[in-house]
Amino acid sequence: MKHLMTILLAMMASATMAQTLTSPDGMLKAEFSLDAQGRPTYNLSFKGKTVVADSHLGLLLKGDNADMADFCTGFKVAGVDHAAFDETWKPVWGEESEIRNHYNEMTVRLDQPRNERSLVVRFRLFNDGLGFRYEFPESKNLVYFVIAEEQSEFRMTADHTAWWIAGDYDTQEYEWQTSRLSEIRGRMEKAIAPNSSQTPAGPTTVQTALQLRTDDGLYINLHEASCINYSTMHLTYNDNPSDKDGYRKFVSHLTPDAQGNKGHIQTPSVSPWRTIIVGESGKDILASRMTLNLNEPCKLEDTSWIRPTKYVGVWWEMISGKSSWAYTDDVFSVQLGKTDYQKVKPNGRHGANTDHVKRYIDFAAEHGFDAVLVEGWNVGWEDWFGNQKDYVFDFVTPYPDFDLKAITDYARQKGVEMIMHHETSSSTINYERHLEDAYRFMNKWGYKSVKSGYVGNIVPYGEHHYSQPLNNHYLYCIQKAAEHKIMVNAHEATRPTGICRTYPNWIGNESARGTEYESFGGNPVNHTTVLPFTRMIGGPMDYTPGIFEMDCSRANPSNDSRVRSTLARQLGLYLVLYSPLQMAADMIENYEPHMDAFQFIKDVPVDWQQSVYLEAEPGEYVTIARKDKHSENWFVGSSVGEEGHLSVIGLDFLTPGQKYEATIYADGKDASWDKNPQSYAITRKKVTSRSTLKIQSASGGGFAISLKAINN
Amino acid sequence: MKHLMTILLAMMASATMAQTLTSPDGMLKAEFSLDAQGRPTYNLSFKGKTVVADSHLGLLLKGDNADMADFCTGFKVAGVDHAAFDETWKPVWGEESEIRNHYNEMTVRLDQPRNERSLVVRFRLFNDGLGFRYEFPESKNLVYFVIAEEQSEFRMTADHTAWWIAGDYDTQEYEWQTSRLSEIRGRMEKAIAPNSSQTPAGPTTVQTALQLRTDDGLYINLHEASCINYSTMHLTYNDNPSDKDGYRKFVSHLTPDAQGNKGHIQTPSVSPWRTIIVGESGKDILASRMTLNLNEPCKLEDTSWIRPTKYVGVWWEMISGKSSWAYTDDVFSVQLGKTDYQKVKPNGRHGANTDHVKRYIDFAAEHGFDAVLVEGWNVGWEDWFGNQKDYVFDFVTPYPDFDLKAITDYARQKGVEMIMHHETSSSTINYERHLEDAYRFMNKWGYKSVKSGYVGNIVPYGEHHYSQPLNNHYLYCIQKAAEHKIMVNAHEATRPTGICRTYPNWIGNESARGTEYESFGGNPVNHTTVLPFTRMIGGPMDYTPGIFEMDCSRANPSNDSRVRSTLARQLGLYLVLYSPLQMAADMIENYEPHMDAFQFIKDVPVDWQQSVYLEAEPGEYVTIARKDKHSENWFVGSSVGEEGHLSVIGLDFLTPGQKYEATIYADGKDASWDKNPQSYAITRKKVTSRSTLKIQSASGGGFAISLKAINN
Repeated sequence: MKHLMTILLAMMASATMAQTLTSPDGMLKAEFSLDAQGRPTYNLSFKGKTVVADSHLGLLLKGDNADMADFCTGFKVAGVDHAAFDETWKPVWGEESEIRNHYNEMTVRLDQPRNERSLVVRFRLFNDGLGFRYEFPESKNLVYFVIAEEQSEFRMTADHTAWWIAGDYDTQEYEWQTSRLSEIRGRMEKAIAPNSSQTPAGPTTVQTALQLRTDDGLYINLHEASCINYSTMHLTYNDNPSDKDGYRKFVSHLTPDAQGNKGHIQTPSVSPWRTIIVGESGKDILASRMTLNLNEPCKLEDTSWIRPTKYVGVWWEMISGKSSWAYTDDVFSVQLGKTDYQKVKPNGRHGANTDHVKRYIDFAAEHGFDAVLVEGWNVGWEDWFGNQKDYVFDFVTPYPDFDLKAITDYARQKGVEMIMHHETSSSTINYERHLEDAYRFMNKWGYKSVKSGYVGNIVPYGEHHYSQPLNNHYLYCIQKAAEHKIMVNAHEATRPTGICRTYPNWIGNESARGTEYESFGGNPVNHTTVLPFTRMIGGPMDYTPGIFEMDCSRANPSNDSRVRSTLARQLGLYLVLYSPLQMAADMIENYEPHMDAFQFIKDVPVDWQQSVYLEAEPGEYVTIARKDKHSENWFVGSSVGEEGHLSVIGLDFLTPGQKYEATIYADGKDASWDKNPQSYAITRKKVTSRSTLKIQSASGGGFAISLKAINN
Repeated sequence: MKHLMTILLAMMASATMAQTLTSPDGMLKAEFSLDAQGRPTYNLSFKGKTVVADSHLGLLLKGDNADMADFCTGFKVAGVDHAAFDETWKPVWGEESEIRNHYNEMTVRLDQPRNERSLVVRFRLFNDGLGFRYEFPESKNLVYFVIAEEQSEFRMTADHTAWWIAGDYDTQEYEWQTSRLSEIRGRMEKAIAPNSSQTPAGPTTVQTALQLRTDDGLYINLHEASCINYSTMHLTYNDNPSDKDGYRKFVSHLTPDAQGNKGHIQTPSVSPWRTIIVGESGKDILASRMTLNLNEPCKLEDTSWIRPTKYVGVWWEMISGKSSWAYTDDVFSVQLGKTDYQKVKPNGRHGANTDHVKRYIDFAAEHGFDAVLVEGWNVGWEDWFGNQKDYVFDFVTPYPDFDLKAITDYARQKGVEMIMHHETSSSTINYERHLEDAYRFMNKWGYKSVKSGYVGNIVPYGEHHYSQPLNNHYLYCIQKAAEHKIMVNAHEATRPTGICRTYPNWIGNESARGTEYESFGGNPVNHTTVLPFTRMIGGPMDYTPGIFEMDCSRANPSNDSRVRSTLARQLGLYLVLYSPLQMAADMIENYEPHMDAFQFIKDVPVDWQQSVYLEAEPGEYVTIARKDKHSENWFVGSSVGEEGHLSVIGLDFLTPGQKYEATIYADGKDASWDKNPQSYAITRKKVTSRSTLKIQSASGGGFAISLKAINN
């Protein structure tokens, strides 16, 4: 009996003995321990303040045997390894030309003796936050398993303010909610607006990246990095004070597949990284490179063909309802190969017609854009949505009025690229069947990038946009595209987790309410001040800014939507919403009356040497300065919320001693998003690193500045 | 009021007025009418005897609106068209070189005024049975719909004897049950043996082709033809006498997809044909060509590359456990591309090694076989089953000991083709991703046919082997294969419905318990006397006959299974189980002691000019004579059940005046499947069309005869 007691005491000692990890700068501290049930437990503090209180880790597996299904308790620490890493790497494109990846690492090897299997939890603590992931080593007792649910917890210390959208297995196209954590449940119903494909995940389940702010001024961001061969994670908040162990915890909530399973794993394997970015200001969150750093280095040997791209396109006119994707109104049911488009009556509103496309090619060439996107060029748009149609598009057959050869020749002659469009209608079975031919078709006709779309419910039936099979699909397309030297900009796919580091031909994603919603009733006025803290933590967004005509009825009298932004803010978005792929989304006729303002869109680069986050408060304002990757010029952009904002900007990021000509595109004095959105003022002045600019932005406003280095 | 009564009476009159269709020979009669609820109703009689009593037709659709979901009642006859058809066509391969397609047709156009939509039921009445299908014309109110269940009924007139297997969404690899209809429920549990993937469909649900025999000697066979873009049908028997309308009816039971839906239809579209073959003897059932006739004519322009094939292979040795598909025993988890096969220890039992394969090539060349199948040639077999593994095989990477180039060169030099093997492990997502490369690989290396396998549960998760998406997958592979001039022999796919007429590169299917089960405990002794009436109504089966060594422990001491057949019957199976692809499935060393009997396998063709069904009783005996497509020679084969059988065969099918040398391979006097299976006697005699042969077959026995035309 005495012997047994000794063992028990030793076990308890080891169970309660915490392992500690500190960030390189010593400000962040993470602790790992096992609780009395042998349950992995961690916490995170910043400068002594708790960020995440004691929270459990583990997974529930599928299976009839309850012992085997429990991958949460009964662990023993088999070993702990510490390591440090510091490396600077160069992204193919990005907010900076060099990124420092600097962390201390603690790898906790856990044995679950009851089931003779092991689990590894790897922690990486950066100066800007913590990442941890599960690693599943191969062993006789752990080869294949199915995840019932991941049980990663994040216990909050108080009723923080949160910027969140409703958890959903199929869409992120919801309005960002700002509320206390305790208010999530009450706000959920309102947070779920209708969408083309949606599967709400639960009454207190929210999506990541989730931005939080504590009352004492700490900014916390929860997300994931490198979600590969795994389903996308949501977080379920426990708002039940009587649940002593669970209260105020977020618990991971994975996306199920068609059978309700949450992951098929073959060992050796790893989970995505669960990330907790921590900062003392909103700027710290935006400046974090943790998500990228937690992804694998670039796997493409040759990246010379990957190039940031600025483009215009035949798109907003369809979104606003002025023209149509469809070629005819006479056909309501299409069977590809059987429907004879030569015999139908054109509707006269088809956007993707040769003459119209040539006009956009002319415009792109004249104003220095790299490329032209054309949607609705291929047959099938009369009948593409809502029926989980299998063979919905073939991706290689143009409409009769889209003269592919003429357009290709014309664009080539004008030095403009064409951007391909592949709407899959979420029939990934069909898309994969046509993928190779579609990419070859692109190669043949010289298309270098594709915007792909995933509108509607997924086929294979019962799958979700965020489930493991779909995440595998998106990556499959990226990898196949890379073989063909094609860049991909996927819309309505799952939200990004920094995989663009590994596959930099993944140049864009939508994965949130983009500009299109400005034509569908409008985005919240502060929408673009929240996106950088949430959606864009995972990677760039093809938000398609640059709308100059805010009144959608001008294009389509039956569309009474208004773009909830001033014109000046539309310019600022090119900085606020980083993307290596930026569209000037409006129609040519809406730019022509404002070519002075349009000059900024012409000037602004899409690839950067350096980024400086000047001011950033989610929901209120975001102002970012970025230095052109290929010159000494700087650009500044700002977007502000409903209340407007006075920005006081010290230009100390500029090179000391260098003079710059600043061109400031600000809201007019009488500007506001709702009353006078097109009021703007353009001023020019010489500035240096010692200058300070004061710029007042209107409600729903913003500004843009170009800072051109002047030769002395 | 009077006016209304008149209308009602008129409606009732039209509702009860039957439309009649007779077969070209006048023996079969089908009637169509609407019942009082406007429900389509039909019956079928043969020489005045009811075959199918009044039975309803229609479908239940998915949807919240009960009226819209009801596609069964409230119909009015909008019109009835009659037509006749008589054409003789030539199959690329088959049991006959010419097939007569002769029927009378009645097309009933139905309106459902309540929902402003239409339904067409097309009946084709042949001399050998009835086919009917639904046609869904396109209309504003009927563009897309989802099937909740098809409601096609087949009301039986009495408690017939049935040969059936358990209804299952994933497998046909069950033993055939012989019972009264009323006994189905009681026998169901026993009928469902474990399988690698199975989803039993219900306590009285059986598969088609379902063979029935009435007590007054009518043979009825229920199946389907041309199951394209539709799920596979089962039949649920209503054995509840108190259900007045339902009793003794079979009702169609479609296979659900991952969401439980039974079909996604876009109009215009058609259902598969539901077939009722009727005959006065078992021979009539086997002689029916209705299933093929109800499929579309060949859609391939060039069929010159499609050739019936006789082959040997490295296969039975793995099935019996003598050698292995896997290359090593050291690896229990494979990740393709990561597992380094150059570094693992070979297990020494790998069948697909170069020297061994060359031995089979030598054997094939020496004995005139067209081709050699080799399974287990490609990496991944150490870990391929049971985990719904996604990336399970790549179909292009040989094991280190399979020298593809040496084997290809050797086979070419010997004039022998190699048959490719693609086990998909039912991960059709993975297979489709690799299909194009896999087929190109085959083209590159000169493989002209592929045996594909679908063992295990389907990925996409939740789908079934018989569901609409999978049926579409199989056909997709066939069509893609045709583009590459590749012939396909799909194992574990859904059961065939005659589509090989339309795509004759679909040269084989398994879709039932094949010879492999003789090594897994044995097939029932009468198994091969039932298959022609059931599984093979839909098309040829790659049964892989020709086993000479019935004691599996000779190959593998730990395998105590016995092949439940005599050796002579194994020869007979080349006639009894028609296939344009026939294997001599045993190992070379088992043929060598019996080269006199092996001569028959060498001689027997795999393509035919004419077939004559000499005697056929399901479960008892089947004896078939076939004339070589390319000579004047005839061949006869027989398989008999547990009781043995004396065949008295008049040779009046032979050309009058022509002399033939008959070589008869019969069971030895002391033969029986269980005691002395290898006892056989070979006798030769001269015969003419006026000769009669009497041949006694043993229990589980059979015989084969070659009849070589002799120049006078």
